[in-house]
Amino acid sequence: MAPKVLLSEIKWAHEEVKELFDGIADVSILDKSMDKSSFIKELSPGGKYSDIVAIFRSHVAFFRHFDKELIDHFPPSLKWVATNSAGYDSIDVEALKAKGIYLSNTPAAVNDATATTALYLIISAMRQYSNAERSLRDLKWKPAGNAAVSHDLTGKTLAILGLGGIGLRIAELVHAFPMRVIYHNRRKAEGAPEYCEYFEDVEEMLKQADVLNISIPLNASTTGIVGEKWIRTMKKGSIIVNTARGGVIDEDALIRALEDGHLGSVGLDVLPNEPHINPRLLEFSNITLLPHMGTETRDTQRKMEVRALTNIRDYLVYGMGKDLVPEMRT
Amino acid sequence: MAPKVLLSEIKWAHEEVKELFDGIADVSILDKSMDKSSFIKELSPGGKYSDIVAIFRSHVAFFRHFDKELIDHFPPSLKWVATNSAGYDSIDVEALKAKGIYLSNTPAAVNDATATTALYLIISAMRQYSNAERSLRDLKWKPAGNAAVSHDLTGKTLAILGLGGIGLRIAELVHAFPMRVIYHNRRKAEGAPEYCEYFEDVEEMLKQADVLNISIPLNASTTGIVGEKWIRTMKKGSIIVNTARGGVIDEDALIRALEDGHLGSVGLDVLPNEPHINPRLLEFSNITLLPHMGTETRDTQRKMEVRALTNIRDYLVYGMGKDLVPEMRT
Repeated sequence: MAPKVLLSEIKWAHEEVKELFDGIADVSILDKSMDKSSFIKELSPGGKYSDIVAIFRSHVAFFRHFDKELIDHFPPSLKWVATNSAGYDSIDVEALKAKGIYLSNTPAAVNDATATTALYLIISAMRQYSNAERSLRDLKWKPAGNAAVSHDLTGKTLAILGLGGIGLRIAELVHAFPMRVIYHNRRKAEGAPEYCEYFEDVEEMLKQADVLNISIPLNASTTGIVGEKWIRTMKKGSIIVNTARGGVIDEDALIRALEDGHLGSVGLDVLPNEPHINPRLLEFSNITLLPHMGTETRDTQRKMEVRALTNIRDYLVYGMGKDLVPEMRT
Repeated sequence: MAPKVLLSEIKWAHEEVKELFDGIADVSILDKSMDKSSFIKELSPGGKYSDIVAIFRSHVAFFRHFDKELIDHFPPSLKWVATNSAGYDSIDVEALKAKGIYLSNTPAAVNDATATTALYLIISAMRQYSNAERSLRDLKWKPAGNAAVSHDLTGKTLAILGLGGIGLRIAELVHAFPMRVIYHNRRKAEGAPEYCEYFEDVEEMLKQADVLNISIPLNASTTGIVGEKWIRTMKKGSIIVNTARGGVIDEDALIRALEDGHLGSVGLDVLPNEPHINPRLLEFSNITLLPHMGTETRDTQRKMEVRALTNIRDYLVYGMGKDLVPEMRT
């Protein structure tokens, strides 16, 4: 009997599901009308999901949070979870590990679309275009004094916190201007282009930045890491752009710095309590806000789905997928 | 006695005015409380502007339109008009020529900031970010079905109508993704990078475009040139971005193509009757609109002012400025 694979939802890669799994696995799509407790029932002996081998997880229904409670109910047959996302902060990696279940993500597939979003936010924040468009749509033409608070990108300094796949792609895109690119990782990034200048000391980097771009994962050690001290280390009038996770910024510190004008603008694609937005953010006309659009293109979503599905297929066929998350690599 | 130079307004280059003209010219700033007829009186014999040699023109008060009526009143002493802009469609070049007055613009100074605006509009239109931000600010999080109408830039084809200074700069910026760049000029652009593919036939180019970027000047032969026929030659769902002048697009044809979904989106920094906006444009949630922000940064506005002023200085010192408009070159 073919191994059973449960997919939470497929938006674009319907053809690819057939190509990847026909003759290899018995694929079913999650019944999203179920609630969490009835899903758990189906995972138990005799349930329709009691012998699944792999799960394709996307950010829908009760699949949003793969917490320990849910994971503890996973059947012994389950060996692979492929999350259709780069981030996996809503998945309890240790709980999976404890049960011997592998976790893969879709790292490279999101780089291009997310970096493009970061570039958009950098331009919008530096040029104050969010406010300009609202002013035009309110029939007020240009906002007064806009040029005084608007800056060209060319020649300015972009600090990248986290030069991984997304950070590197952002570096490539802004190098076309060029912006000067400086970055901080715990260790110097191997194979980074020469124009990316490494700072071991994050505060030394922040002092030189006109714009800080955040591309680090959210975890216990990065929660609120961009806080009062780092923000105040930046120059007056500087800008912060975040396409990673809302929780890496201390939102209260960010709002204080917008209120007293220490920050000239921010560009946020992510918020700490999505889809809820702190209403205080809506009071600032000089910032750009997006509802987590980093990977919202059909091109990239298809790429991500195929990449996540391929990890499951590779596990079934070869015993291992390519995108095992770092915490699970030995 | 030092030659007299009249400046309409200086926003950023106050220091540079001193550096460029101290000991060389007698500089005065236009009294903007005057109306056009009292200004004309001051241009007449005995008036305080009756012996000016050069004018620095920006887009303020009655200087917006340098029409034949105004130019006919210019005194015989006047030899140089330096407009603080790349475009000069609101200046009657023939009327200046007839009086032996030179006209310079600020071509290269605007390239970087305007191309950045075009890149912003390309990203915003392809990713539907204008609508996404409005949705978030209305507390509705993501617009439904957004990914289905959103596209990655990478690998798509950008057609550039008018590969001059601004068009070339746009090509450089999108080449970082890369987008494929195709272009149409009346003649193949000398010295264009190899990745810019020339189309002698504009319709052949349009057929292959995912996005059309417009970077041609407005004049009698380009008014409404992007009209019904060209728009319908493009693929269904394609995008038009304009940072040149509103008048080069046939606005009715554009609106029809948005209404019936032939165009997937547009990104407009310029409108035919600025600062007036056609209210029908405001009905489309899927387009991005800016109030002519192409050069609205302090960095670029200073560069433009210095460039325009330098043309006047070069005329006074060497007898010729560097940025004479093409119509005046022999």
